[in-house]
Parts: sequence; C-alpha cells; structure tokens
Amino acid sequence: MLSTETKVFSEVTTLLDCYLCVRNDTTDICQPLTIEDHAVQPSAEVSPPKWHLGHTTWFFEELILVRFMPEYERWNEQYRVLFNSYYKSAGEHWIQGERGNLSRPTVDEVQAYRSYVDHHMRLFLSSESLQDKESDAEVIAEVAEILEIGLHHEQQHQELLYMDIKYILGVNPITVTYDDTQLLKAVPATGELWTNFEEGVYQLGHSGSDFAYDNESPRHKTYIYPFAMANHTVSNGEYLEFIEAQGYRIAKYWLSQGWDWVTENQIKQPLYWLQEDGVWYEFTLNGKHALDLNAPVTHISYFEADAFASWKGCRLPTEQEFEIYLQQSTAEYGLTKTACQPNDTSADAGQVWCWTRSQYSAYPGFKPYQGVLAEYNGKFMCNQFVLKGGCVATPLGHYRHTYRNFYQPQQRWMFSGIRLSKDIEWR
Amino acid sequence: MLSTETKVFSEVTTLLDCYLCVRNDTTDICQPLTIEDHAVQPSAEVSPPKWHLGHTTWFFEELILVRFMPEYERWNEQYRVLFNSYYKSAGEHWIQGERGNLSRPTVDEVQAYRSYVDHHMRLFLSSESLQDKESDAEVIAEVAEILEIGLHHEQQHQELLYMDIKYILGVNPITVTYDDTQLLKAVPATGELWTNFEEGVYQLGHSGSDFAYDNESPRHKTYIYPFAMANHTVSNGEYLEFIEAQGYRIAKYWLSQGWDWVTENQIKQPLYWLQEDGVWYEFTLNGKHALDLNAPVTHISYFEADAFASWKGCRLPTEQEFEIYLQQSTAEYGLTKTACQPNDTSADAGQVWCWTRSQYSAYPGFKPYQGVLAEYNGKFMCNQFVLKGGCVATPLGHYRHTYRNFYQPQQRWMFSGIRLSKDIEWR
Amino acid sequence: MLSTETKVFSEVTTLLDCYLCVRNDTTDICQPLTIEDHAVQPSAEVSPPKWHLGHTTWFFEELILVRFMPEYERWNEQYRVLFNSYYKSAGEHWIQGERGNLSRPTVDEVQAYRSYVDHHMRLFLSSESLQDKESDAEVIAEVAEILEIGLHHEQQHQELLYMDIKYILGVNPITVTYDDTQLLKAVPATGELWTNFEEGVYQLGHSGSDFAYDNESPRHKTYIYPFAMANHTVSNGEYLEFIEAQGYRIAKYWLSQGWDWVTENQIKQPLYWLQEDGVWYEFTLNGKHALDLNAPVTHISYFEADAFASWKGCRLPTEQEFEIYLQQSTAEYGLTKTACQPNDTSADAGQVWCWTRSQYSAYPGFKPYQGVLAEYNGKFMCNQFVLKGGCVATPLGHYRHTYRNFYQPQQRWMFSGIRLSKDIEWR
Amino acid sequence: MLSTETKVFSEVTTLLDCYLCVRNDTTDICQPLTIEDHAVQPSAEVSPPKWHLGHTTWFFEELILVRFMPEYERWNEQYRVLFNSYYKSAGEHWIQGERGNLSRPTVDEVQAYRSYVDHHMRLFLSSESLQDKESDAEVIAEVAEILEIGLHHEQQHQELLYMDIKYILGVNPITVTYDDTQLLKAVPATGELWTNFEEGVYQLGHSGSDFAYDNESPRHKTYIYPFAMANHTVSNGEYLEFIEAQGYRIAKYWLSQGWDWVTENQIKQPLYWLQEDGVWYEFTLNGKHALDLNAPVTHISYFEADAFASWKGCRLPTEQEFEIYLQQSTAEYGLTKTACQPNDTSADAGQVWCWTRSQYSAYPGFKPYQGVLAEYNGKFMCNQFVLKGGCVATPLGHYRHTYRNFYQPQQRWMFSGIRLSKDIEWR
Repeated sequence: MLSTETKVFSEVTTLLDCYLCVRNDTTDICQPLTIEDHAVQPSAEVSPPKWHLGHTTWFFEELILVRFMPEYERWNEQYRVLFNSYYKSAGEHWIQGERGNLSRPTVDEVQAYRSYVDHHMRLFLSSESLQDKESDAEVIAEVAEILEIGLHHEQQHQELLYMDIKYILGVNPITVTYDDTQLLKAVPATGELWTNFEEGVYQLGHSGSDFAYDNESPRHKTYIYPFAMANHTVSNGEYLEFIEAQGYRIAKYWLSQGWDWVTENQIKQPLYWLQEDGVWYEFTLNGKHALDLNAPVTHISYFEADAFASWKGCRLPTEQEFEIYLQQSTAEYGLTKTACQPNDTSADAGQVWCWTRSQYSAYPGFKPYQGVLAEYNGKFMCNQFVLKGGCVATPLGHYRHTYRNFYQPQQRWMFSGIRLSKDIEWR
Repeated sequence: MLSTETKVFSEVTTLLDCYLCVRNDTTDICQPLTIEDHAVQPSAEVSPPKWHLGHTTWFFEELILVRFMPEYERWNEQYRVLFNSYYKSAGEHWIQGERGNLSRPTVDEVQAYRSYVDHHMRLFLSSESLQDKESDAEVIAEVAEILEIGLHHEQQHQELLYMDIKYILGVNPITVTYDDTQLLKAVPATGELWTNFEEGVYQLGHSGSDFAYDNESPRHKTYIYPFAMANHTVSNGEYLEFIEAQGYRIAKYWLSQGWDWVTENQIKQPLYWLQEDGVWYEFTLNGKHALDLNAPVTHISYFEADAFASWKGCRLPTEQEFEIYLQQSTAEYGLTKTACQPNDTSADAGQVWCWTRSQYSAYPGFKPYQGVLAEYNGKFMCNQFVLKGGCVATPLGHYRHTYRNFYQPQQRWMFSGIRLSKDIEWR
Repeated sequence: MLSTETKVFSEVTTLLDCYLCVRNDTTDICQPLTIEDHAVQPSAEVSPPKWHLGHTTWFFEELILVRFMPEYERWNEQYRVLFNSYYKSAGEHWIQGERGNLSRPTVDEVQAYRSYVDHHMRLFLSSESLQDKESDAEVIAEVAEILEIGLHHEQQHQELLYMDIKYILGVNPITVTYDDTQLLKAVPATGELWTNFEEGVYQLGHSGSDFAYDNESPRHKTYIYPFAMANHTVSNGEYLEFIEAQGYRIAKYWLSQGWDWVTENQIKQPLYWLQEDGVWYEFTLNGKHALDLNAPVTHISYFEADAFASWKGCRLPTEQEFEIYLQQSTAEYGLTKTACQPNDTSADAGQVWCWTRSQYSAYPGFKPYQGVLAEYNGKFMCNQFVLKGGCVATPLGHYRHTYRNFYQPQQRWMFSGIRLSKDIEWR
Repeated sequence: MLSTETKVFSEVTTLLDCYLCVRNDTTDICQPLTIEDHAVQPSAEVSPPKWHLGHTTWFFEELILVRFMPEYERWNEQYRVLFNSYYKSAGEHWIQGERGNLSRPTVDEVQAYRSYVDHHMRLFLSSESLQDKESDAEVIAEVAEILEIGLHHEQQHQELLYMDIKYILGVNPITVTYDDTQLLKAVPATGELWTNFEEGVYQLGHSGSDFAYDNESPRHKTYIYPFAMANHTVSNGEYLEFIEAQGYRIAKYWLSQGWDWVTENQIKQPLYWLQEDGVWYEFTLNGKHALDLNAPVTHISYFEADAFASWKGCRLPTEQEFEIYLQQSTAEYGLTKTACQPNDTSADAGQVWCWTRSQYSAYPGFKPYQGVLAEYNGKFMCNQFVLKGGCVATPLGHYRHTYRNFYQPQQRWMFSGIRLSKDIEWR
C-alpha cells in the first residue's frame, strides 16, 4: 500500500497522508467499544485494546520522535515501559500477561497521548521541519524506513485488534455484537477442486522495491516436488464431519503435543463454536449465529488443522508450496475493512490465514533489521508455524504473496483456517 | 447501626431509610473511580468494583425480591450467575479469579441494575406492599432478618471496596490518588503500655437483640489464663526496626509455611511499602508518601505479624483475649467514613484489624443460618485466622466487640495490623 | 514407654537398651521391602524409606554425638544436609519433595551409617564414657532429654514408615503385599452408642514426669459445654452409605476449600478404595481385599471427615472433647505392632487417628523446646488440624491421651478416621 | 550395522546373533549401576534405567512375539501398560513423568522379563520356528523389518541410558563415578577452520538398502546457497569466553523463548558445569573434573547454541547443510562404546550431536511406517530441532549421515554441542 508512494520521499504530503490515514483506521476500529472493552485482558495472549492504542503510538515516539526530533519531549516517562511490547534493547517493558491489570492510563489519556504524538509527527513530517534534514539523505532514508515499518506495524495491530476484540467480547456470557457486518462469507465450492504443480526450482520470497518485512527476504530458489493444492479452504461443514467422525477422540490423527493439548484442555471444537440442544452456533463479531456450513472454518489451531488433514488423507502445504500457489493465483486481494472482495475463481482466497506445515525459520541469506527493530521478527524463529494468505481482518494493502505470518501451534484466536494439499507421486 | 431501628419493624420508613442510606454509601465509595478502575482485577483475591456493585444488588434480588415479591422479574437472567459470589445452593457462579475477564455488563449497566433493584425494594418495602404481608408475621420476620443481613453484607463489601480500590490503584506504576483524606493517623504511644488481665472464666460472644452474624453466637464461657495486652498497635517505626534487624531473613521467627511464603515470594516488607534511594515510602489511598513512622503498621500477613511478635519476645493474642480487651476498653468506635475518631486512652483502637493467633472455628453450640445463607460463614472455618477490632475502612456502625473477621494467613490486602500480648506467669 | 525408666538415669544400661530396642524396630519395619521400595518417592509428602533410616540416625548424630562426644567424627559431611528434614537452625537441608531423586546413598550405605552411629551411641552411653560426664549433671540431663525425644522422634518415623510404605506399595499397579497381617480389625458396634459429658471446667494437657512433647503442655483448664461422643469410630459400611447418598457431589456438606479439593482432584472415595465391576476393594498392607464393612473407615481427609459428619447431622469433636473422652475411657492402649488389643467397651479405640475440628495451636502458656528442637512442633501451628487417639501403626508405648497429632486438612495417607460427636442442648 | 546382514535374511543365525549382541550391550551398560540407580527419575524427561530395560523388551514382545508367535504368552499382562512408552495404538500407557514412582517390578523382575522374552525370541528366530513361516515371504519380511527397527530402537535407548544415567548420577550431591573412561576427548583445532560449499542442487536423505528410519526418506533434491562450515565443534574454552562476555545476560543474542527460559530458570552455564571458588568443573560419567578447555562443549540447549552463534557473528547450520558437510567428510565414524576414533582431519566429528537451525519436519514425499510404528517419528514433527552427527554415547553402527536426531529447544541432557556455519555472500 505504501510502497510506491514512500519511495517518492520528497512528496512529504503523501507520507503524512498515509500516516494519518493508518492512524485514523486504528481509532475507527475501537470506536464501537465501551471503555470497559478497552481495558480487560481475558487471556495472556490477548491485549486490552487501549494497550494497542498506546503501543502503536509508542512505536513512533520511541523510534522516530525521540531519536530524530531534538525538541521533542515525551508525553509521559512511564509510557516508555508500559507501552513497550518486547523490545529488550528499548529498555524495560511491562509483562505481557499483566497488561489487563492496569486501569491507568485511561482510554481518554491514551487518546490524548495519540493526539500528542500525532501532532508532533505532523510537525516533524511537515515540509519545514523536514527541510532542515534534507541535507542528510541518510537520516531521511532511515526515518522513511522506520516510518514505513511503523505503519505496517500499526496495520498488524489493527488485525490484532479485531482478534482481541472478538475474544474480549466472546468471553462475556452476555452476547455482545461488535457491529452488523458479516465477515466470513460462505463460498460454495465450484470448478476444479485441485490445482497441480510441477517439480522444479521455484523462486520465492520478496524482491523489488515494494515494502516487505525483513523475514520475507531475500528472494531465493527452492526445489519443489510435484504437489496439488485445494482451490478452496475447508468449510465449516467439512470440519463438522471431522467432529462427527470423532476426530477429536482418535489419537492417530494428532501430533503428540497436539493430543496432549486436546486432552488437557478438553478441546472438542473450534474456538468460537458452541453446541446448544444439538444445534451448532458460532460467535462472530456480529453476534451469535447458527453455524454457516459453507463458510470457511476458522479459529483453529495448527494441531487441529494438521489432524483434520490427516483424517482427510491429505496434508498441510509447506509455506513454499503455498507461496507458489499464490503466485499463480489471479486473485486480487482487495478487501474493504469488513469484507473480502476477490474477483476470481479462488473466491475464498484471503478470507482466512492458512496454516502451513513449515516451522518459521530464516530464509537463506536472511538479514534482520538493524538496531531495536532487529527484534521485530528474528527472535521468534522457534516453535511457531507459518500461515499464509491473509484474512478478513487484514487491512487493505497489507496482503502480500510473500507475507509470512506465524503463530504457536496451539494458538487459535486469529482467523486461521485450512487449505489442503497433497503429494503427486514421484518416488 | 441497624440493630435498634430494625427491631421496631412496624416503622417501615426507617428500614427503607437504612436501606437507601447503605446503598447510597456504596455508590459514593466508587464515585472517584474511572470506568477503567471499575473493571480490572489485578489479583484473584481482588474483585473489580463493578462486580461489588452488582453482587450486593444480586443479594437483595435473589434473597428478597425473587422470593417474596411475586410480581418481580429479574433484570437479567445471566446476572444470577455473574453476580453470585460463592453460594452453591443459589446455583452456578462465575469463577472468582475471572471476574476481571468480563467487560460486560458495563458500569452503566450495573448502575441501571442497582436502580432497578432499589426501585423494586422501595416498592416492596413501602407501606402498601408490606401491608399485604403484615398478616404473615413469620414472613415479615424472615424478610427483616435477610434485609438486615443484606445491609451488613453490603457494609462488608464497602470495606472490601476500599481494600480492592487501594490494590487496583496501587498496581499502576503511574501514581494515582483516590482522594485527599489521610486515613491512618499517627498516634504516638502515651500512658501505660500494657493492660493486665486476671485468670478466670469470662463470657464471650454475642448476646442480646442487636445484630450480629451467626458465627458470633452463642455467648459462652471460656477459661482464660493471666495475660497482658498492649495498649497500642505496633507502629510503622517499630516494624521498620524488625526489617532492619533482618527479621525477614531469619528463619527462627517464622512459622514453617510463613518461611516458605517469604522465600518463594521474596517478601521483604509490608504490601504497600517501597524503598527508593534508601528512603521508605508507602502507597495510600491519597497517594505515595514518606512512611509515617508513628502510624500503625498495616497490610501485613499473619505470617509477618507472628514473626514480628516472636522477634519481640511476645505473642499475638487469642481472639478470646482480644475480645476481653475490647470489653474493658472505653473506646467508642465512631468513625466517619474517612477517619477514626476515638475518644479515649486507646487512641488507636479501630484503626487496623488485629491478627489473633486463633484459627477461625465454630463457637460451642454454633448454629449457622438456615437456607442459602448457611454458606455465609460456616464453610470458611478452615485455614483462616481471626482478626478483631475493625479498621479505618470499616463503615460506621459495623464495629462490634464480638465481630470475627477472618483471612488466610498469607493475605494482606486488608487493613491488618498487630496488637501484641504476652503471658503473665502462672505455671 | 521410656518415661519411668529414663528418669532413673543412673541406670545407663536401661537407657541403652531402650535405644537399641527402638533402633531395631525401625530396621525391622523395612525388612520386608525390596531395595527399590526403599528408594522411590511417589508423592511429595511421602519419603523414601531409606531417607527415614538416614534421618532418624542423623538426629542422634547431630544432636548428641556431634555436640557431646568430642572425639566423634561425622560419617559423611554431606549427610548433614541430606538427612536434615526441616531444621533451619541445623543448616541447609535437601528439599523434601526431591528426596526420591537421589539414588545415593544406597540402602546399604544408609545401613552402614546406622551401624556407625549406633556403635558410637553405644560407646557414648556405656558407663565409662558417661562416667566422665557424671560430674556435670546439667549436661547429663540435657543428653537424657534429647535422647528421650530422639527415641520418640524415631517412633514417630516408624509410624510414618508404615504410612509411606503403604503409599509406595499401593501406587504400583502390580499388587504387592507387605506382610500377612491384617491391621484394621472389624469391630461391630455393641452397647451404648453415645457417651454424654457434662458442662464444666476440665483439666487437659500433660502433667507429671512421664514423657510428652512440648506442645502437650502445660496442663490447663478449659470450659466445656455438654456434649456426646460416639463410642465407635465410623465404619467402612457407614461411610459407604455416604458415598451412595452422593455425598461427594453435594456441595452443602463440604467446607469451601474441601469442595474445591474434591472438585479439582475428582475425589470420590477414601484413598485406598477402588471399585471394580461394582465391587468395592481396599488396598491394605497385606494386599487388595474386598472392603470390610465393619472395619473402621480410614485414609480420609479432614474435608471428608467433616463432610461425613455434616451429612450425619453431627459434628467432629474438638480436641478438648476428645481428650476428655479418652480420660474417662478405660481402654488400655496396648498394641502389638500389628494389632490393637484393647480390653474394654471402646473396642476400636486406637485403631485410627480421629480428626478433630480443632486447628492446631499453642496451649495457654506453651513453651517450646530450646535450641534446634524449638522447630519440632511450634512452627507448624498453622493450617493443620489436630487428630487424637493413635492408630494401628503407632508403636507400643507411643500412645498418650494428651498426644496431639496434626495434619493438613487435605492429607490422608495416614491412618485417619472419624469419631462423631454432637452438642447436648444448653443454649 | 545390521543393514547388510539382515538383507541376507535366509541367514537366520546372523539375525539372531545381532539380536543377542544388541540385547547384551544394553544389559552391559547398566552393569555398573546400583539397584537404586535403576529406580529413580529425578526429572520428567529422564527415565529410570530399569524402565529402559523393560521397554526395549516390551517392543519385541508386543510387536513380534504377540503378533507372530501363536503359542507365546505374555510374561505379565500389566507390563503391556507399564512398558509402553507412547504408542497410543498399542493401548494405554503409564505416564512418562511418573515412571520413577513405581518400585515394582524390581530390577530382578525386569531382568527375568528380559530373559523370558530373549528365550522366546531365540526360539522364534531359530531355524525350525522360522522354517514354518518360510512359505510366507511377506510375513518374514515384516518380521525382519520390525526386528531391524527393534534393534535400532534398542540402540537409541542405549544412548538414552547413558544420558539418563549421567543425569541420575549427577543429581546426587555425593559425587559418583559411573566408570573410569573419559568420554569426550580434547581435540585441539588444527588445519583449515572452515570448509566452503558452493551453491547448487544437492541430494539429501536416505537411499539404498541399508537401514534408515522412515523420517530419513525419501532421498530428495534441495537448493543450497553458498555457505561455510566450521571444521571443529566449539570447545569448552570458546564457550567459556561467551560466559565471561556476559552472554547469558545480554538479551539480544537470544531467541525470545530462549531469553524467557534463561531468565525463569536462572541458567548461567551448561548443564553439568559448576563453579567453585572461581574454578570451573564439569560432572562427567567418570566423576567431577576440572573443565577441559579443549574438549567440545556439550549438554547445551538449542537456545544456548543459537545465542553462542549470534554472539560469534555466525549462525547454526541447517540440517541440509550439515548433511552435505557430512557427505564430503572422510571421517569414518567408528566408535567404541567409550571413545570416538575418527581417522581424518575432522577429528572431533561424532563426539557431540550438533544442533541445527532446522525445525524437525517431514521430507517431501515422507511416508511414515504403517501400523503401530506410524507413531515412531511422524507425530513429533512439532517444536523440535534437528541434531546431526552422533555422539560418544551413540552405539557403533548407529551413525549415519542421514540420521535426524531431534530434541526440544530447551533440552540439554543429551550430548549436544555446536558446529558453526556462516553464509558466503551471494545476494
């Protein structure tokens, strides 16, 4: 989204426009929430929305204003700790699982902090302020890079906000509606079910001048064996068959850790499903509804995705296979904030992030960001699986074929689903 | 406070006045809070203030309106579960440690619930409504008993609110002030330090027509050996000497479980104390202040109280000894909501609850309440210690010599302190 | 057992005989065990038998030989830490729950340690050696006191050995038999079911020159209200009725913490009971047998004892009531190691320790032992309940009316049972 | 080791010889242990040696004798559960972390079980018995395959025995020696430090008729970028520099989960290192010795290996890179049970398993074993990292270039070390 504009860095107005637009989107997402919804943390992996509002602001304060705007004074010294997520090189940070213990700062105070930082970012990015620096192209380039990352970072938090808001509202036994939009659309399967791919050396990973995170580079060759990829994501209806076939009770479908997870937590269905008097319902951002059998299954763990694939006699794709699939897809990801509007045969592409069997690790020749942002991606390359594609909560312009999302195998509060693949015999 | 009035049960107006007065006090306590302060639960033993507002309301709805007002309809069926604390015979209840996970109902909704129940209580207690029942003296007596318990119950929660609010505000690294009142007053020790008591049979426990909980009855005899009781509670200054004498690091002063608790939790001082650059501070409801050495030490566990007493070569009193001490004291407990105004030599009586060495158990001939309220006191007679006296957060009229407060030995978020006693040789 | 003999301290031979006799009994108890049985620790509260063999030896080494026999050299410096149980003033000690992690010292090495210490104790207590000290009556008295405590301490560990061995053998899915003796005898109830006691001041606690622990003193008066005490302990058959009446599933019978314990641990029966094809069995030291309905119920927690009493409409006695009951009982406790041989109407007295509702705390005027042994009893006066009487595993001569045994309310690997009491109306 | 012989399946004698030889090696490993050493389990991931003796026996009983020898009767029905490790399709199994709770069966009983199964395997593999089956080539082939896997399985447990024995002995504060052999030899670095590899498509994985596990197949192509591999494993001396440079205290070297692990467990050095009076020692199977600075560092976690590599400005190799390195190495792995005897420049190859940065997952076209053994490898492809090479505790003949060992990133009781690699610039 930003990529081309930001390269024309002299057009400062454009950069600022981008900034204001992204910042505004974040505030918009929280608009339907009560103050109480902003403050609670019903699970350690979920953050209170007011924390997201503060953290995304801290990012610009800490990495741009404090470093590049000499006259800038922090809004509040303690926010430095409170709104640092996990950047050890930026000093102490508050414990993630205890964000919901804090009633202060209030939502109003966090909004004031946002305004203060936005005001200074506006000053800083305004022509005069920037003029002073134009002599130093290196500094400008660094600011531009951090700014761009900061906006993508904020977009990631926009998706996290949808995830966390859904979780926060869903925990309440009193049914709550976020808004009236139906996010996941039922897309009945049509056309060919599988697309085949041939053996060979493929090129993967990011190249070119558009924006991508450090972990998507460099573009590199990989040797691929023949495989087939499903043209549709698995639907609620198909997943229900797995449940009814006692899939959650048969050990042989499950990874060893997956079976322990299912047993210890008595997992019997996807995260937001519930059964009442034999009828299946799903909690969604627009309330509790009868389960839509044609809509893609979502909010499942890697363990569940993998067990489902085993039960089906298929497997999950590797991240390389998935990216090859995306490359050939004519799907144009173009989502409004509330719905997926794809225009091709892969009608459900981009509705849910799809688990791959690839554990998240460095590409050959990977070079992490320098400085504080070195911690952005590299330090999580352990015990996480890659998801590809994007979902209905992913902001417009945040989709990329090369995007590598990653979560732990038991996590499922994100919009995660399944696209099956299978080997084409070659041995 | 209620005792005499409620006995004149025909004076319905008085009863209603009491009800409205107590209910109003609860709302007043929460008045200085932000909405966020109402919602969080930074420790499992602390409840979000909005939960207290709902629970105390649920008490009257569940135990009076639902049972005695035929036309009454519940405000919300789910509040029955959400605002039940631990009464198993009243059905399911939400898990205590997960109260802070819920953003709904909002504070506004809980206030609306309070108004709704208050409105119906007003209707129910109004002459006409009650007139209908006047024929049935037994029902009236039962309603009167539950109502009276309900108001004392709400007063207990008023004290809990002060405790929980202090904890909620204190957790924030950003210093917050609840109000400007200084609660604990410094009272330099004067006069005789000890009062002696003789051996003999004493009468203890509640008798008469004034209100008391079931666990304070019956009045009964107990054989007491000669003992002395300190006329002053232990001050911050005296407690600081214990810290400086390495009291927290010398095992012999501590109970076995106490030593484990100190070691595992790295306890080094009372709950709200902190040391900065060698200077001691205390967080209070009116902010962070330099430690007042003359004020009574508070927010300490039984383990700490017992270790301090050992270090002093004294011991903690039994609850019987403490009640005998209170009986002879001329202290008139008369507290405004914000300060202790005692008018006698025992100037600090009632500023802090004092730990006794008595583990909480049934008096001889104890008879618990009938019905749901059987769970009020009896089921907690295990692994708790009795505290006597009352504290600055105890509502006016809620003080009684026979009152038996009780907490687990490691808890310390209540206003708990120390009054020493010692044996007078008789063996 | 020792009491009278030890007072005639000049008769050194007798003292030594006692020592050798008690030490020998300990070894005898472990005789039927395999080496593997000596080494494992299937629960943190259970100790490996070889640890008991070492710890009881350490007691004499640390408290007598090291202090009073100048030429004594420790067998192994590291045993000082490994075999110290919890005496902080005797230095570091190994973590209790990790005793079963250690394969060394081996059983043979521990036996060698026992022989070494016994050899030196024999030397030390032999006339010559003691002669040297006879001039110093104070030292002799101190040695005699510690020696006497040490032998009672070792007898306590003999009972613990039976408890721990039962647990260790019982954990194995392969049924194992310790020996052929049936410990708990069925004693059908005959004669009067209840004995009544009148109101008044009673004398309780230890007096006289016989041995007793510090926590049994001083003898003191206590005011007692009229009560009745069951002449029989509750039988397996009676307890089975409680189970069949769904007693484990009805919250109102249970203490709050007891209900949590039952729920979290899915407790449904006493510790060693198991049901197979609808038939009840009990694991005992002589193997798995059909449940003997007339034998006293045992291996139950305080929570279960209290819930059973509530279900019966009775209550558990206080420790004072139990001691008064024991005083009037003509039962002569005289147990062989394997069976209770009482000679009176209270036929089952002494088969099982009976839970009392009294939480373990200090008697008025309590004075703990001095020095290291100060930690023997006093530091456990928190969150424990008193049991009275004694059991089939209690060594001969270790029974006393004034004995105060104590365990945490959820523990049940000891031979614990129920004797009911009830109020006689007086209010 | 077995590979070529077993292919000549008609030579039954050879097969039986292999069986007896491997079985005998296992018993030999346990020979220096006391019975107590066989029974304890000081950590959930460690198993009591007697359990290994039983489990490896159960493998042949359950998968060969019960299925293929009609007249065979199990030695003990309960061993079926007790000695099943994790094969869900073979029925219930005892909880891994509670193996050390069981004193029975005793070591003698397990040895009797081994003899019984060995006796029947001997009968079964003897010519007559096998003659009956020779008509059925399919059955014979299946038996041969399981037998071969069973022997490799037992060899894996031989290595586990060394690991577990070291842990069990090492936990004892009393220093114990397993035997007199020094396992890890100091090999001072000589010659070229790095070997370079060129970009290209390489073939990896198992092919041919020799034995390999399912997870090593199929042989497949992979695209590799230019890299360099260290010719020596990291030594204790080099690792000590990392410690002295405060490597354990600087977050930027560590993976996010690694930093949490270091902090929570207060990790400050490799598993068996200890510092006394400023001098470093290492516990080894032949006792406690001053740290040998030239010997390879071992018993480190993936987290530590990765942090060390970061500190060095290098990285860990991928498993593909490591296998390519092994292919070109002229090192002939040929270890006696106690020492590595390589005959080439890579003098320390095979002394320690080397961590790779590859998370353990399926090769393209991976086909797991059928039946019960499907659980052998596939279900662990989650949250584990691959180690390559082999170590001093790996049995002779168990080394393979294609071998994929795997452990969780925090585990370190295996003989794990570091071989560094680095990118050769190509971007």
